[in-house]
Amino acid sequence: MQPWRFIRIRGEGLRQQLHRVVEHERVLTARALGEREDEFMCLKVQGLLDAAELLAVTLADCRDKHVFGRRTLPHMDLASASCAIQNLWLAARAEGLGMGWVSLFDPADVSVLLGLPEGAEPIALLCLGPVHDFYEEPMLQRERWAQRAPLASLVFDEGWGQPSDLFDRPPTETP
Amino acid sequence: MQPWRFIRIRGEGLRQQLHRVVEHERVLTARALGEREDEFMCLKVQGLLDAAELLAVTLADCRDKHVFGRRTLPHMDLASASCAIQNLWLAARAEGLGMGWVSLFDPADVSVLLGLPEGAEPIALLCLGPVHDFYEEPMLQRERWAQRAPLASLVFDEGWGQPSDLFDRPPTETP
Repeated sequence: MQPWRFIRIRGEGLRQQLHRVVEHERVLTARALGEREDEFMCLKVQGLLDAAELLAVTLADCRDKHVFGRRTLPHMDLASASCAIQNLWLAARAEGLGMGWVSLFDPADVSVLLGLPEGAEPIALLCLGPVHDFYEEPMLQRERWAQRAPLASLVFDEGWGQPSDLFDRPPTETP
Repeated sequence: MQPWRFIRIRGEGLRQQLHRVVEHERVLTARALGEREDEFMCLKVQGLLDAAELLAVTLADCRDKHVFGRRTLPHMDLASASCAIQNLWLAARAEGLGMGWVSLFDPADVSVLLGLPEGAEPIALLCLGPVHDFYEEPMLQRERWAQRAPLASLVFDEGWGQPSDLFDRPPTETP
């Protein structure tokens, strides 16, 4: 299906307009979170101005004509596009580059700025480029936003909530 | 957020029940496609019985409490889970194993079989294991279902539909 479209932001003007849209949603999200105005949310938004490359990823228009594998799960095109983004992410890290997936925006605003046709939908603003450093642990964990859940609580056997014996033995060393 | 849950199917009985659910949807999808009853759709379904490992992936319950990055794009948890699946996919291929992502099922049926709690949602049945062969080109292309679209038609500059100059120069060799 190749439902993904990548749009490379070139002009400073468009980049600043997208930044404003994200900053606007950052404030609304902070409000929805009970005014938790963490610094890392500002940092994430700053990435839109600072990153060497800014890419928008959107789902394609005319998605309705693709029925195969989507009749009961129409959102499978988002799944497909996310796999494409993850490939980019891993490739970037392999090159020593950092990437941030920003989803703090109103899709309607981004659609207008990028001139998306009816049916297309923005799903990501990707800030890509060299970084000063990589986090040693997930950033949201470092900021005490959340703790990483242990794998044994996320992987089950046979049905929901049933412990998997995969975790009974000590984990093998990663080479 | 770690919104993904992996459920490893162990029993032959559950595997056959899931197979029946997928076979049922295969017939309905074929009907929706105008009775195009291609052999590859049967092959895909057969994978559920034949694969060395069958895994179900679901989104977690209690998704509503996660607001950050999802206020305007609540389906970002599907994006996150898809990235996890893509990592598994690449890891499998690096080990010489094949994987198939089956989305031919009614999520309500699969939810019942796996005992999912309210709010959780199945997004994939993954057939994982050794394969006879890998396709030299995407299977749907080989079967003349679709042609792979050229990258230049999927990557734009600055706005939807504007050609990117990334494709003006000859592509560099992949090492």
